[in-house]
Amino acid sequence: MIINDDILTTVPIIFSVLNWFGIVVFAISGGLTASRKEMDIIGFVIFANITAIGGGTVRDMMLGLTPVFWVEQTLYIIVASCVGVLVFFTAHIPQSRFKLLLWADAIGIATFCVLGSQIAMDANISPISAIFMAIITASFGGLIRDVLSGDQTILMRREIYLTAIFVGSTTYIVLIELSIDKNYAAIAGFSTCLLIRGLAIRYNWYFPGYKSRPGRDY
Amino acid sequence: MIINDDILTTVPIIFSVLNWFGIVVFAISGGLTASRKEMDIIGFVIFANITAIGGGTVRDMMLGLTPVFWVEQTLYIIVASCVGVLVFFTAHIPQSRFKLLLWADAIGIATFCVLGSQIAMDANISPISAIFMAIITASFGGLIRDVLSGDQTILMRREIYLTAIFVGSTTYIVLIELSIDKNYAAIAGFSTCLLIRGLAIRYNWYFPGYKSRPGRDY
Amino acid sequence: MIINDDILTTVPIIFSVLNWFGIVVFAISGGLTASRKEMDIIGFVIFANITAIGGGTVRDMMLGLTPVFWVEQTLYIIVASCVGVLVFFTAHIPQSRFKLLLWADAIGIATFCVLGSQIAMDANISPISAIFMAIITASFGGLIRDVLSGDQTILMRREIYLTAIFVGSTTYIVLIELSIDKNYAAIAGFSTCLLIRGLAIRYNWYFPGYKSRPGRDY
Repeated sequence: MIINDDILTTVPIIFSVLNWFGIVVFAISGGLTASRKEMDIIGFVIFANITAIGGGTVRDMMLGLTPVFWVEQTLYIIVASCVGVLVFFTAHIPQSRFKLLLWADAIGIATFCVLGSQIAMDANISPISAIFMAIITASFGGLIRDVLSGDQTILMRREIYLTAIFVGSTTYIVLIELSIDKNYAAIAGFSTCLLIRGLAIRYNWYFPGYKSRPGRDY
Repeated sequence: MIINDDILTTVPIIFSVLNWFGIVVFAISGGLTASRKEMDIIGFVIFANITAIGGGTVRDMMLGLTPVFWVEQTLYIIVASCVGVLVFFTAHIPQSRFKLLLWADAIGIATFCVLGSQIAMDANISPISAIFMAIITASFGGLIRDVLSGDQTILMRREIYLTAIFVGSTTYIVLIELSIDKNYAAIAGFSTCLLIRGLAIRYNWYFPGYKSRPGRDY
Repeated sequence: MIINDDILTTVPIIFSVLNWFGIVVFAISGGLTASRKEMDIIGFVIFANITAIGGGTVRDMMLGLTPVFWVEQTLYIIVASCVGVLVFFTAHIPQSRFKLLLWADAIGIATFCVLGSQIAMDANISPISAIFMAIITASFGGLIRDVLSGDQTILMRREIYLTAIFVGSTTYIVLIELSIDKNYAAIAGFSTCLLIRGLAIRYNWYFPGYKSRPGRDY
């Protein structure tokens, strides 16, 4: 029993749940991007994978955790591929794919800002680097998705997006540093990120942009 | 004699031939992209290198095979650079650079879907991951070329492209798992990929795209 | 005293000065890009970081120097972030942000073509690979900045840019191979790169482009 409890504390089940939840919603968001661009079924599978595993792949390469995670755990690419195929056949059902894409993405970043923080801290890096790694984990899948699909990246828009990831991962990391139980810290980090991003989507929150003169063209 | 045979079985000469052949045709395709965009000679050299060694570089970084392959084998960047210079002075000769680009690229992906599969399996990863790595090896050089030159990436078009890589590398890996001689497996994988892609170019094959409503702009 | 001298010879202070100077000017150039696109303050911080640490991050991943440099030396991301915030509040002051951006970028590439060469040679790679690594270190931060901000990358323009990096790092590496003192070699490499790029900006130098027929659209 004691051993069991220890294991639960070390690798809380909530991370496993969050993990697969995040993979699935990001794969959905990749598939929805493919549907908006009227791609073929291969495009759906590729974009589901890029969005679901892209951020974690870049994080693993930067930390030197190679081969990157999905090479040995092929379930990731199998699940993401299946979700891609599924979205190809069901994307016409929701009324607004656009809204669904926004919310799937929001849940995805909330998930991966917590998971990315934890994986970064497992690699024994400083809290500040861990926050940066969490932002990379949560946002790079979507960034690569946007660059490859020719969409404007989130970086160019002034919505509250990276800020939500930043606050969520900071919440999680500060609570862990304060020796709070990982389960509670994870729930707190996830909720904070989703709340901020959700309010931003719902009420169209955005930061004031730099206002002086737009740049001239090259 | 026996030792010699063993060495031949372990590192079949066909891989060395395919390898340099692939580097050259991909470097040509990079140079042709540079010519279509009317770049200067430096642009030709850079795009020849990006296309020829980009896919393998990403693969090596993901697998942790660092320093990446061309750092110690500088012949790769020397050959790709020379091809870039050569294309700068000869790209006006072919009647249709566009068609030549398509076919050079087709031969390149057929080559690297086999080589990428083999390198991935040498790293002792599962067959499914090896197929993914083969797709990355064969397609990422061209993807980075397209993103940096501002062209629409192949992912956005509905031609049979990644499918050809997928079938070619699966053919190769299945034959290897069935203990077929590497030389035959390599020829089979290469031919399958080139045949499918070639037919797709010649007869304008494409997959049906997702058809519902195009996405609205952000 | 002798030990002190040895240390000075091994890690000349000029590299430390150049290093932070390069980080700051590249962070400024990232912030100025953000201002030209009228981003919010988060965008300024992100683009300052991408431009300042992007090239070195790609270099470290390719060489296998992981975790990449800024993970353990968080001062890099702290400094770049502060510069981003500072630019947000001061970018309206210079008369031409565009010209400032060009010159900050020029000083940045002169700095990092020397530093990138040195770090590559510390990793015991061949001089030719070291020159390629220097080009990657000096140019990839700006390349990623341009791709993510939707600007045309420097690769598509015909200005003397990569050539300046190439000549600067070659100068440095040749002098080092000739056993010239690192301090002098660094000053020579830096000056050569900045001089060539500076003249190119001032007198609008560019290479002749490939001239035949532009490519047709896909």
